[in-house]
Amino acid sequence: MATIKEVAKEAGVSIATTSRVINNAPHTSEAAIVAVQAAMKKLGYRPNANARALVSKSSNTVGILVHDVSAPFFGAMVKAIDTIAAEQGKQILIGSGYHDPVKERNAINLLISSRCESLVIHSKGLSDEELTELADEIPGMMIINRSVPAIADRCIALDNFKGSYLATEFLIKNGHEKIGYIASSHDIDDAHDRRDGYLAALKDHNIEPNEEFIEYGEPDEIGGEQAMVNLLAKNLSITAVATYNDDMAAGCLALIQENGIRIPEDMSVIGFDDGLIARFIYPRLTTIRYPIQVMAKQAVLEALQRASGKEVERAQNLFAPILVKRSSVSRR
Amino acid sequence: MATIKEVAKEAGVSIATTSRVINNAPHTSEAAIVAVQAAMKKLGYRPNANARALVSKSSNTVGILVHDVSAPFFGAMVKAIDTIAAEQGKQILIGSGYHDPVKERNAINLLISSRCESLVIHSKGLSDEELTELADEIPGMMIINRSVPAIADRCIALDNFKGSYLATEFLIKNGHEKIGYIASSHDIDDAHDRRDGYLAALKDHNIEPNEEFIEYGEPDEIGGEQAMVNLLAKNLSITAVATYNDDMAAGCLALIQENGIRIPEDMSVIGFDDGLIARFIYPRLTTIRYPIQVMAKQAVLEALQRASGKEVERAQNLFAPILVKRSSVSRR
Repeated sequence: MATIKEVAKEAGVSIATTSRVINNAPHTSEAAIVAVQAAMKKLGYRPNANARALVSKSSNTVGILVHDVSAPFFGAMVKAIDTIAAEQGKQILIGSGYHDPVKERNAINLLISSRCESLVIHSKGLSDEELTELADEIPGMMIINRSVPAIADRCIALDNFKGSYLATEFLIKNGHEKIGYIASSHDIDDAHDRRDGYLAALKDHNIEPNEEFIEYGEPDEIGGEQAMVNLLAKNLSITAVATYNDDMAAGCLALIQENGIRIPEDMSVIGFDDGLIARFIYPRLTTIRYPIQVMAKQAVLEALQRASGKEVERAQNLFAPILVKRSSVSRR
Repeated sequence: MATIKEVAKEAGVSIATTSRVINNAPHTSEAAIVAVQAAMKKLGYRPNANARALVSKSSNTVGILVHDVSAPFFGAMVKAIDTIAAEQGKQILIGSGYHDPVKERNAINLLISSRCESLVIHSKGLSDEELTELADEIPGMMIINRSVPAIADRCIALDNFKGSYLATEFLIKNGHEKIGYIASSHDIDDAHDRRDGYLAALKDHNIEPNEEFIEYGEPDEIGGEQAMVNLLAKNLSITAVATYNDDMAAGCLALIQENGIRIPEDMSVIGFDDGLIARFIYPRLTTIRYPIQVMAKQAVLEALQRASGKEVERAQNLFAPILVKRSSVSRR
């Protein structure tokens, strides 16, 4: 096989330029890219990233672990990371863990062994201990949407309890007392914290919580619709419903309206996340903003800094949820 | 560093079992995983996929190129591929190309050099010639949502023209004559073919097409809403609108209803894709089914077969779009 020196000679550019083209480095001219690629093709030269990674110990790549890339929340997270990574001349590789410890472990191992030096990990399946050991081993690893006390400076999380508390309190302040809750059936902190926030807001306003008012489902449109079917079937005279996320709220909205119940006149609905869908379902969804783009950007910037050996200081680890008023909640 | 033999001895299992654990092979017992991982940790053994890939020439990984992982269409595509890959004990790595030739080329090179033997590529930026050369070089590469004549057997695509023709014809059969079109502003075949399908259906039913009735935008909710704002502003007495995709249709729906225009009584809307959102916006969206899950499954199965040197025969390369009736279209 041809050497990089032969490629550079054929392309009529320096070895340094050839190397920049091969390594997809930023600030490479289009002319150089065309010349080097033509030379590589003519000489049959295909750079081998595995061999390069063994030498350089770096792949110029940011690895991302998500729950499920098909969920809009994670799509938004990946896009925010990719934007920052691209600005810094890095590429991304993505793996899915589906909240399962074995799948999460396998996906993280694949990213590490593909020589991703920077990692942004959304893990719900692995234990605090395992994540702490990984963080100790990999300086450029950051954890998003989870708080691990032993490595608090490596974690960027949202105050889920407070978000759900805010949502429920907003319904109470609008005169609602019979407030249902559409919960996630996943056994993860987010699900517990958000349900606890709903319950705490009720108690703090002297409304007795009732398990009958809570229904569980997969945290997507289908799960939200099924949970709402079950909640409506109980005939509890509910006038408002708080939900685990916007996708579940979206599943409720169509079902409620098809049953001749007007939103928000007859039933108020509040979401969580403030994803793109919240702005485009009808009526537009009042919800709690999860600033995932801001958090993802901070996570990847810190991951890149830590991977290159820099110190990182941050004022806080817990981001604040914010109420976003639109058209799906009205006064009772 | 410790050898695999020492890890196996420490774990009290065979070298073959140790290798299976290290390579994330299927059918490995949880007990073996725990024992091998404990031994690896104790001995400080971290398998190096780059070194392994150099030896085995395979990474057990399926590479996927998408346009933008945050678009729901691509989320659905990735999930379908991941499901098949997981069944076969493979993991996936994902890259984003954003319909840009340089980004697509870089992302494909990263996947190839990470030793993905099987590739499912959604490329709109690269030329037919470049894709043909890549396909010749990489036996396990399949192209999805595009027809490249020279390598038709490596391509799995949808008849976009026919889908849009079907959608427009359905509106015409429901008595509509003044039919707007919300088009994608992207300069890709999909956008051209779907607009051409709309125009052809009008002509075949003796309705004179008029450029005034077409508005363009980014193929997402925001772009759909903006295009609909522009279309409504022209005061053209439109009674129905066909759209490039469901996301653009969703952007139209909220806007139309907020302006006191009822769907479908005053305005019929038809989507394209039949993504999850089509079933959960209100009113539920009549649309054209893009069978992306079926197509993605076929693409990854063929990619895996081809990568392992098997012959693949297929009856056809072009999948058929299907009309799915819901609640957003009514008779005029």
